[in-house]
Amino acid sequence: MILLTRKAEFSAAHYYWNDSWTAEENERIFGRCANRNGHGHNYTLEVTVAGDVDPVTGFVVDLKLLKDILEREVVGVYDHRHLNLEIAEFAKLIPTTENIAVAIWRRLDGKIPGARLHRVRVYEMADLFADFYGEF
Amino acid sequence: MILLTRKAEFSAAHYYWNDSWTAEENERIFGRCANRNGHGHNYTLEVTVAGDVDPVTGFVVDLKLLKDILEREVVGVYDHRHLNLEIAEFAKLIPTTENIAVAIWRRLDGKIPGARLHRVRVYEMADLFADFYGEF
Amino acid sequence: MILLTRKAEFSAAHYYWNDSWTAEENERIFGRCANRNGHGHNYTLEVTVAGDVDPVTGFVVDLKLLKDILEREVVGVYDHRHLNLEIAEFAKLIPTTENIAVAIWRRLDGKIPGARLHRVRVYEMADLFADFYGEF
Amino acid sequence: MILLTRKAEFSAAHYYWNDSWTAEENERIFGRCANRNGHGHNYTLEVTVAGDVDPVTGFVVDLKLLKDILEREVVGVYDHRHLNLEIAEFAKLIPTTENIAVAIWRRLDGKIPGARLHRVRVYEMADLFADFYGEF
Amino acid sequence: MILLTRKAEFSAAHYYWNDSWTAEENERIFGRCANRNGHGHNYTLEVTVAGDVDPVTGFVVDLKLLKDILEREVVGVYDHRHLNLEIAEFAKLIPTTENIAVAIWRRLDGKIPGARLHRVRVYEMADLFADFYGEF
Amino acid sequence: MILLTRKAEFSAAHYYWNDSWTAEENERIFGRCANRNGHGHNYTLEVTVAGDVDPVTGFVVDLKLLKDILEREVVGVYDHRHLNLEIAEFAKLIPTTENIAVAIWRRLDGKIPGARLHRVRVYEMADLFADFYGEF
Repeated sequence: MILLTRKAEFSAAHYYWNDSWTAEENERIFGRCANRNGHGHNYTLEVTVAGDVDPVTGFVVDLKLLKDILEREVVGVYDHRHLNLEIAEFAKLIPTTENIAVAIWRRLDGKIPGARLHRVRVYEMADLFADFYGEF
Repeated sequence: MILLTRKAEFSAAHYYWNDSWTAEENERIFGRCANRNGHGHNYTLEVTVAGDVDPVTGFVVDLKLLKDILEREVVGVYDHRHLNLEIAEFAKLIPTTENIAVAIWRRLDGKIPGARLHRVRVYEMADLFADFYGEF
Repeated sequence: MILLTRKAEFSAAHYYWNDSWTAEENERIFGRCANRNGHGHNYTLEVTVAGDVDPVTGFVVDLKLLKDILEREVVGVYDHRHLNLEIAEFAKLIPTTENIAVAIWRRLDGKIPGARLHRVRVYEMADLFADFYGEF
Repeated sequence: MILLTRKAEFSAAHYYWNDSWTAEENERIFGRCANRNGHGHNYTLEVTVAGDVDPVTGFVVDLKLLKDILEREVVGVYDHRHLNLEIAEFAKLIPTTENIAVAIWRRLDGKIPGARLHRVRVYEMADLFADFYGEF
Repeated sequence: MILLTRKAEFSAAHYYWNDSWTAEENERIFGRCANRNGHGHNYTLEVTVAGDVDPVTGFVVDLKLLKDILEREVVGVYDHRHLNLEIAEFAKLIPTTENIAVAIWRRLDGKIPGARLHRVRVYEMADLFADFYGEF
Repeated sequence: MILLTRKAEFSAAHYYWNDSWTAEENERIFGRCANRNGHGHNYTLEVTVAGDVDPVTGFVVDLKLLKDILEREVVGVYDHRHLNLEIAEFAKLIPTTENIAVAIWRRLDGKIPGARLHRVRVYEMADLFADFYGEF
């Protein structure tokens, strides 16, 4: 059993806002992240899959295929987008690093032939990241 | 003569748009960057100052002071902002990496006591950066 | 269940020395680290906490709060200090990377409201790090 | 119980080729990696060992000893070599990142006095790595 | 006047060998690099161009175009190749980091519309790089 | 003409203190760096040499030789030392990043056969570095 990890990047805008709070509450809890004009990040995504090594190819999963799936399901969807305004799952859900990790898990789970999704790691900055292992 | 460089980071949203063009022209030239909802980046700023080493302190410039100037003039202004919508110099100027480097030069030049501003480097992503040396 | 990791840095001096050994034994076992004048490192600390995502905020833990706790309990205590000479837990304990990881765990465990401390990772250099999960 | 990780690097050439396939099949499955002249990488190896901290030294394992073992068993063997043509285990086995991780596990397991091998991580590029925990 | 730098990567095999020397001389001068089976690296290329900012686009050069030129002239040619055996300029020239930097300069010079090639930097490893500014 | 750069690292302790000042003045100017117990850093050194490519070897300078010179003249001298207490040039000179860069220049200048020393860069932290080009 091998774990194979591939990184990818996307650049997106977001803000933190809870519609059930007043503006003052949003600013008190979320600070500068509550700016409704949005700010943004270069997000780094690490997707880890688990599986056995195919003795014929030496692969757990074909890397070209894995890259294409990440591009189709996540990077091509999120990159150069405003997460709150343009991505369906964040219409009601605040796009924190934690929630982005869970959302990417939902987008990828069951889509990778021959391997099991093991972990989704999302870096918002180099000094902050969230890991999700599918434990809802 | 020593060059001293300090890095800082800010996270901001932006888009590329030329008001004198049609939407189609903007999309053709700027591609995904023309999305008016904005996207964003973790920008890394490297500011280099030149000067002689003070024999009493061993410093070209006091680093705490330099950090405070960067915070006051640039990071505290740009961080968690939408550059096009909230920063005066980008009301008319497209916030490309090149133009951001020049804008930061204008914000810092003449503000650093005892040293000369030598170079402003701005990374938009790890694989892309612009350098400006004050040659308008 | 999400794991959230925050990095922080501190610069400190240390040396390796076992008082029950002769100078020759200390030098034979610890090599250049046995220099009693001390040497130092830029330590990188990664603190991982585990918890459920609060549906109201989208957070496992408030990052500003987590940063403040790391500053108060660890970075503000260790940074710009000589670990052997100034930090209580290293008066008798050799400040190896392993022991620093355990000491930081003891400083942080039980201090983070609403989340469980999951892992403390300490890098002494980019090519060397220790992980502690609280298994004494 | 502490996990201690040490990084090392080696530069090697390799190609992907399955002798039971035609050249066309190899090119279809392995793409540019099927070039029999070989290409190469700067591989980064992370070896993690698990153990208790020795109260006398503060070490899980003596780092100088661990470095020497990595050099003798892996880096000195693989570095500046063509993996397919010069390394015994890859005469029949395709040197994918997955298979290299397993091969390094076999080379190191049981060779580290006083600690248990916990994980072998191999990076082929900064955006791709494989982890093996000894689960054959 | 702005300098704009773009990074790219390619993975290739090479060896060092001077045909006018004996095998012993090659091994004495080039050490492990003289292994004729080849070894390899993940090369990182930084290409810097100089120019004025176009007031209409905010660009020195269109980044998509620059990326395409790097792909067509360098990365698509060198990547997953054995430099000595497959790249014309290294049939007679030893592919040292220095010579690779000069070769990439020759491939790119005059190919970038609207900007002047300023510097080619090539990293063979993270701790070794060569810069060429076109001064033959 | 090529510039060739090699990186190296050393770990050392230091403090900032001007003997002609009172303790209060030292603390006011140097802050936490004035702690006489010392603190420390992982310093990264980048040494750049300039020269023509030898057509016989493809080298500006033999990298093994350059590495040995850096080890003999700098790394083997500074590493695991307390700069103020054990290194002659810092008995009277405050070991700031600026002064360390100049001191390393003096140690290396004229010692590299066949190439000219072009630049010494010293990183104290990842976000702070000093460059010296030999302009006293």
